[in-house]
Amino acid sequence: MKRILTGIKPSGDLHLGNYFGVIEPLLELQERTEDELFVFIANYHAQTSVHDKEALERNSYNILKIYIAAGLDPQKSTIYLQSDVPEVQELAWIFSTLTTMPELMRAHAFKDAEAKNKDINVGTFYYPLLMAADITLMKADLVPVGKDQIQHVEMAREMVRDFNVTYGDFLIEPKEMIKKEIATVPGTDGQKMSKSYKNVVPIIASDEEWKKAIFSIKTGTSPLGEPIDPNTCNIFALHKLLSKEQVPELEKRYKEGSIGFKESKEILIENLKKKFSPLRDKFNSISNKEILEMIEGGRERAKSIAKENIEKIRELSGIIS
Amino acid sequence: MKRILTGIKPSGDLHLGNYFGVIEPLLELQERTEDELFVFIANYHAQTSVHDKEALERNSYNILKIYIAAGLDPQKSTIYLQSDVPEVQELAWIFSTLTTMPELMRAHAFKDAEAKNKDINVGTFYYPLLMAADITLMKADLVPVGKDQIQHVEMAREMVRDFNVTYGDFLIEPKEMIKKEIATVPGTDGQKMSKSYKNVVPIIASDEEWKKAIFSIKTGTSPLGEPIDPNTCNIFALHKLLSKEQVPELEKRYKEGSIGFKESKEILIENLKKKFSPLRDKFNSISNKEILEMIEGGRERAKSIAKENIEKIRELSGIIS
Repeated sequence: MKRILTGIKPSGDLHLGNYFGVIEPLLELQERTEDELFVFIANYHAQTSVHDKEALERNSYNILKIYIAAGLDPQKSTIYLQSDVPEVQELAWIFSTLTTMPELMRAHAFKDAEAKNKDINVGTFYYPLLMAADITLMKADLVPVGKDQIQHVEMAREMVRDFNVTYGDFLIEPKEMIKKEIATVPGTDGQKMSKSYKNVVPIIASDEEWKKAIFSIKTGTSPLGEPIDPNTCNIFALHKLLSKEQVPELEKRYKEGSIGFKESKEILIENLKKKFSPLRDKFNSISNKEILEMIEGGRERAKSIAKENIEKIRELSGIIS
Repeated sequence: MKRILTGIKPSGDLHLGNYFGVIEPLLELQERTEDELFVFIANYHAQTSVHDKEALERNSYNILKIYIAAGLDPQKSTIYLQSDVPEVQELAWIFSTLTTMPELMRAHAFKDAEAKNKDINVGTFYYPLLMAADITLMKADLVPVGKDQIQHVEMAREMVRDFNVTYGDFLIEPKEMIKKEIATVPGTDGQKMSKSYKNVVPIIASDEEWKKAIFSIKTGTSPLGEPIDPNTCNIFALHKLLSKEQVPELEKRYKEGSIGFKESKEILIENLKKKFSPLRDKFNSISNKEILEMIEGGRERAKSIAKENIEKIRELSGIIS
């Protein structure tokens, strides 16, 4: 049995792009009965960009609620907060003493961030050490990553090798598990759905907000009764994700000219509600206290693995206690 | 009452230079009844240069034994290991997210080290964040430092200000306490006593080793019976530290020509034994287990302060638990 580990940066405002690009693939991983899944909320990591107590708290609770409402199951997966295992900070420190400045400076993500802002904080630079500790303290085998994160897993492997050579074989070299390329989810303006483009359809919203988002989708100007090319229609692009069963019929009606943009949007709104209102209602029904109770087992499990492994790591590296 | 906090990097091989330059001043601080003294063994810090389990363990035990044999008193001072409060790693992380790369790059100690070796490890770069956490997690008021370390205390103050502005007033701005300039302790060749010059008189050694070290002191060539200028004599320089009460008489005999180098060395050996054999014998009588038992109260106290303060720091910075 392999241990798959993944971290989620807490952000409370998820949209369809996040759902189809991140949440659904994670739920698929959860169903791999041959493996076990560890999922943690990367709240230390979030501190590199969020310096607002309320925002970080709210985002941490909300991301847990969204994932669990969406189907992440505390009975099947080990779910915890990064800060539940502060031992990762200790291991990151040990890695920092075995990693040279030029080695860490090579990280693409850091170089890109620094190119944009010289005043980048040290946490952003140090982060690959913490990520390596997140992975290896839990002795994870596999880390699902996008192509942009492969290098960080490679770096984690190097740190493991350095540790094992210096202090004795103990840590496991993790492998990346390249995520399937998910077709880009288009936003209301046809560009990639992204908060920064202000073109998102949120996962958690009222019926009214959903209606407003869908009605803001940019369309062509074909008058009712004329054929529409489904491949150039932003509404149709979302039907492919939300109205899968109706797609053949909708395609036919588009080509015939027997459907207008308004009706197409109304159908999309109904399907959006059908898919996401149970998630939203579940999300809204869970209190902050309850969500922590739901993941208590995972938190305890992660803490106990961390405790056992850090004791050995301390002993191997000459920390007396 | 002010809290004075100081860290000692573990090294087992101390010499007279360390004794008169570091240990004696620390014992003086301990006697300031108006203040309280916290002393920790900086074993995390040592990991930036020591990557050898046995060496770090041995040095950690030995440094504790030497200081306590010399008079550091677990009843008067709070003595612990840096690694007893792994919470410092968490606070260092938070500081890292509030400190920019250029701010940390400014550190003189880092710049000097990097100038000598481009492949310096990340821990050496990150260290001022950890030092700031060591100081501020314990809410220390005063930090005894040499002139070369003033900047690190200044940086710790900046981090405290950043933290307090971002998350609310909680941490205390520490102040440096500039150490008195101690007259340089001369080695057996007249240069500053230093391991790298191989001119040391060790604190912990057998009578034979002491005898050998003192007899290796370089002297002039005046034949017995001729006056010797005490100010140019390497033996006399050590008499000033080890034979204080006899200095006037020795000075007289030097000037009269009624003492030779051999007798002067023999007197010095006797005084060295008188001062350091009780320390050495106590050092040798303490087992590893006993030394940890002796500081148990301090360790528990430091842990409890760390726990209380980190809980508040986590809460203030948006870590849910």
